[in-house]
Amino acid sequence: MADWVLDQKLADDSIFVADWPLSQLRLINDSRFPWLVLVPRLSNIEEIFQLSSYDQQRLLQESSHLAKMLSDLFKADKMNVAALGNVVRQLHVHHIVRYVGDCCYPSPVWGVGEAVSYTEQELRLCLEMLHDSLAVI
Amino acid sequence: MADWVLDQKLADDSIFVADWPLSQLRLINDSRFPWLVLVPRLSNIEEIFQLSSYDQQRLLQESSHLAKMLSDLFKADKMNVAALGNVVRQLHVHHIVRYVGDCCYPSPVWGVGEAVSYTEQELRLCLEMLHDSLAVI
Repeated sequence: MADWVLDQKLADDSIFVADWPLSQLRLINDSRFPWLVLVPRLSNIEEIFQLSSYDQQRLLQESSHLAKMLSDLFKADKMNVAALGNVVRQLHVHHIVRYVGDCCYPSPVWGVGEAVSYTEQELRLCLEMLHDSLAVI
Repeated sequence: MADWVLDQKLADDSIFVADWPLSQLRLINDSRFPWLVLVPRLSNIEEIFQLSSYDQQRLLQESSHLAKMLSDLFKADKMNVAALGNVVRQLHVHHIVRYVGDCCYPSPVWGVGEAVSYTEQELRLCLEMLHDSLAVI
């Protein structure tokens, strides 16, 4: 993973949370939704099927762990899990906590309205909650 | 799987393609994009993490197989793979072939514009292509 470099737009739009065995876990800087992405720390991968079988299983394990933890922690009505990559091609998997009645529901969140950045205090609290709940797997 | 029933909206919006070991493969009736969904034939499942580890691996295997086949068959610029479920709660995983310059790119496809149903001839041709390419796994 030595030559892995995080995409610049992903870096600008999100905050480091943790490095898991395969992926870097990052919080999207949009306080409208608890929204995390898993970014496998591998170069030149745009699609899940381009990963080795072993890494596909590791990504699945990390994704399911993250989705369940977020669902429990934030009492989600629904989790949205997606690998799109139309704007940022580097493989990244979205995990978004949705509530019936949130600002976009039932639409997907991408491209709807404007992101609302966390305040410093909100960000510190959110990262504390995440670090307490999302044990390294 | 005896008591599994396909959600009525999913049934109305899509066409049966095949039953794979875990999931039913269906074509969304929107000729703007080659767009298939995998629907695990299990009751009362809304999130991937609710599946057993074994079934999560089977879903991953089916999803990666499908995404790679669609990418090759339709020469996709990008695959969009997503489990959302905000409207239809029954677990289903979207696999959508995207092209730079398609009607929605780079936005996601959900809720953008109106679906354009296949004509009978288009549908027959599309299903023939799929059946030729998507061998049962």
